Amino acid sequence: MKMKRLLAAALISVSLAVSASAQTKSGTGASRTLAAITAVLDAQSAAWNRGDIDGYMNGYARLDSIVFVSGDSVTHGWQTVRDRYRKHYDSREKMGTLTFSDLEFRPIDNNTVAVVGRWHLKRTSDEPHGRFTLIFKRTRQGWRIIHDHTSSAE
Amino acid sequence: MKMKRLLAAALISVSLAVSASAQTKSGTGASRTLAAITAVLDAQSAAWNRGDIDGYMNGYARLDSIVFVSGDSVTHGWQTVRDRYRKHYDSREKMGTLTFSDLEFRPIDNNTVAVVGRWHLKRTSDEPHGRFTLIFKRTRQGWRIIHDHTSSAE
Repeated sequence: MKMKRLLAAALISVSLAVSASAQTKSGTGASRTLAAITAVLDAQSAAWNRGDIDGYMNGYARLDSIVFVSGDSVTHGWQTVRDRYRKHYDSREKMGTLTFSDLEFRPIDNNTVAVVGRWHLKRTSDEPHGRFTLIFKRTRQGWRIIHDHTSSAE
Repeated sequence: MKMKRLLAAALISVSLAVSASAQTKSGTGASRTLAAITAVLDAQSAAWNRGDIDGYMNGYARLDSIVFVSGDSVTHGWQTVRDRYRKHYDSREKMGTLTFSDLEFRPIDNNTVAVVGRWHLKRTSDEPHGRFTLIFKRTRQGWRIIHDHTSSAE
């Protein structure tokens, strides 16, 4: 009986310790997460605006499982997404100046955050723009995009 | 010393039991989840095709926090998304016949699945189509959409 009570006490303190550490993590972690994700997006637009598509692609997880959806097309895998960008934006003029704004963060779980925002490309001849939904995952390399759905103003 | 070993054994068997039950759940649960989500999408297109927007809206979680992204616009909240659908599709002709196809399921965690797919509207005068990314959450009412990003062929 004494043993059972001791075991129960041990299990309770283990679970309390776990939930306390989870709470501390999510409490101070939430703002750290948003700052980390914002930094990834800032690094992406900075890379884009110096014509560095590979630097831009660093925001995506380097996985065959990443998905990029746009208009009526779906592209699978980091390498294919990169090739698509390099083909569509094969000159500094086409790349223009990229701005992300109006970010909304939707935490899904401790390791996943969906981000909605605006994208705007300032170019000499036009200014394409629209919205994106990004699913960010916490990876060993930091927060990275595993899913990107981008749409344009019609 | 004996006590410590006993405690350790108890903790190990607890964690083994937890991981075994998690495995069983995800094993048989994965196909149940996909079937449940597919059923929600089937019910949505069936409702749409009988002109029942409220039935269609039943696929979305009835929450102020749901998000619908399309083109360059973001709509927040079940009621506002419903109103937007009723305004855009205010006749049987505009609704046409909706088909979902080419579904890809991306499990995020036990309670969240992202789904990518094609949508196609067959109407007398045109056939708009494109892709969607849906984030489904397990709710008390079943699997429901909490996030929808829809894009059209350009």
